[in-house]
Amino acid sequence: MGKTRTIEVRESILADNAASAAGLRAVLEKAGCVAVNVMGSPGSGKTTLILATIARLGGGHRAAVIEADLDSSVDADLIRSAGYDAVQLHTGGFCHLDASMTAEGFAALGFRGLGAAEPADGSPHAPLPAAPDSAAPYDLVFVENVGNLICTAEVDIGSRLNLALLSLPEGDDKPLKYPVMFRAADVVLVTKRDFSSVQEFDLEEFERRVKFLNPGASIFALSARTGEGMEAWLGFLREVLERRAGRPS
Amino acid sequence: MGKTRTIEVRESILADNAASAAGLRAVLEKAGCVAVNVMGSPGSGKTTLILATIARLGGGHRAAVIEADLDSSVDADLIRSAGYDAVQLHTGGFCHLDASMTAEGFAALGFRGLGAAEPADGSPHAPLPAAPDSAAPYDLVFVENVGNLICTAEVDIGSRLNLALLSLPEGDDKPLKYPVMFRAADVVLVTKRDFSSVQEFDLEEFERRVKFLNPGASIFALSARTGEGMEAWLGFLREVLERRAGRPS
Repeated sequence: MGKTRTIEVRESILADNAASAAGLRAVLEKAGCVAVNVMGSPGSGKTTLILATIARLGGGHRAAVIEADLDSSVDADLIRSAGYDAVQLHTGGFCHLDASMTAEGFAALGFRGLGAAEPADGSPHAPLPAAPDSAAPYDLVFVENVGNLICTAEVDIGSRLNLALLSLPEGDDKPLKYPVMFRAADVVLVTKRDFSSVQEFDLEEFERRVKFLNPGASIFALSARTGEGMEAWLGFLREVLERRAGRPS
Repeated sequence: MGKTRTIEVRESILADNAASAAGLRAVLEKAGCVAVNVMGSPGSGKTTLILATIARLGGGHRAAVIEADLDSSVDADLIRSAGYDAVQLHTGGFCHLDASMTAEGFAALGFRGLGAAEPADGSPHAPLPAAPDSAAPYDLVFVENVGNLICTAEVDIGSRLNLALLSLPEGDDKPLKYPVMFRAADVVLVTKRDFSSVQEFDLEEFERRVKFLNPGASIFALSARTGEGMEAWLGFLREVLERRAGRPS
């Protein structure tokens, strides 16, 4: 009985969320901003990957980060101390972001047209200064989701690109065990590739398992720490940014 | 609005679950069986730890494993191929076990007195042969929960001992970010200690962070692969088994 009730409520919440996600995505498309939803287990290297990506991307992009956490602000503090703009969202124990929480993050970054999501005076997510001409303040925003390989996969947060990170020490069997995430991802990044000296990881078998679930997924293996393999991922992201809607011609 | 509804249903489900958990715990106490709830992220080394623990425990204990997964049976197959009894539960996408799912696993292992949880003929979880004298067939059962450092922490599955695994590559800051899990754990195991050659991990700082949340937690750092640090954990577990209710005097 309990389970049935859960599913009913869940479906209604997911329908509400789909509408919010579509609304946010339309605002971001129009603003020419690519939102990247960064998902993966705790410790899979999400923050490190985001920092290394922004640092090496080039091309004069204006990038910012929305960090989500149950409670703490350690990741946003780390991003800010590296010199980039960041907003911290607290999910208050919820195990994933949803589209309306994410829209609050974009509003706090100075994006306009998000309706009720725009932060009121005294909001805990005080807005960063908006661009003087009211243009979208950033053309690339990484949204670091809560560290969770399950619950985050099913919730559309209005992003353009869904990234699933799996760190090499987690093992090459994980697509068998967490299929929803590997189906939801546009891009699968195998992080901490430099750990291959202490742990075996059959990359070919892993790729076969991902492609079985999701033939269209792009897969890159890299180490954000050593830089190995970063260029292929950066090349992919640069192409997505080139193709984005609303970019100045 | 969506959020309020979630919380109401959630409280009712958690109350139902607390009653089921208390019922299962009473049955297991009476049977002299210690149930260990093994929680941690995907790839934190749960299956490897369980196998190494059973193999090295000694003392003639009758151990078995209940494996939970969204969908696959890879872990139960691995346990069985190592020569131990295992039951696989599929949560059907749910991100954690609850007490009634866990009770189904114990019924399939041949435990009696679990009421509605006893598997009917044709159940997908066919019972293993029960001990001929109807005594509890096992005195130690590891329940490997779904790989998730968030959602599993809040749900009582009727276990005697709650184990939180954090693998060394996940990083020493995780108690700050996933406090609910580190509060819920009786024992915190830092696994993959042999990865310290490729990644820094401040064990002292980690212990300080865990103790701040949970002063009573026992903490062990080990590598199930090399055996380093296993003896301290095994000594702790042997003491719990010695003290268990219902053991033959």
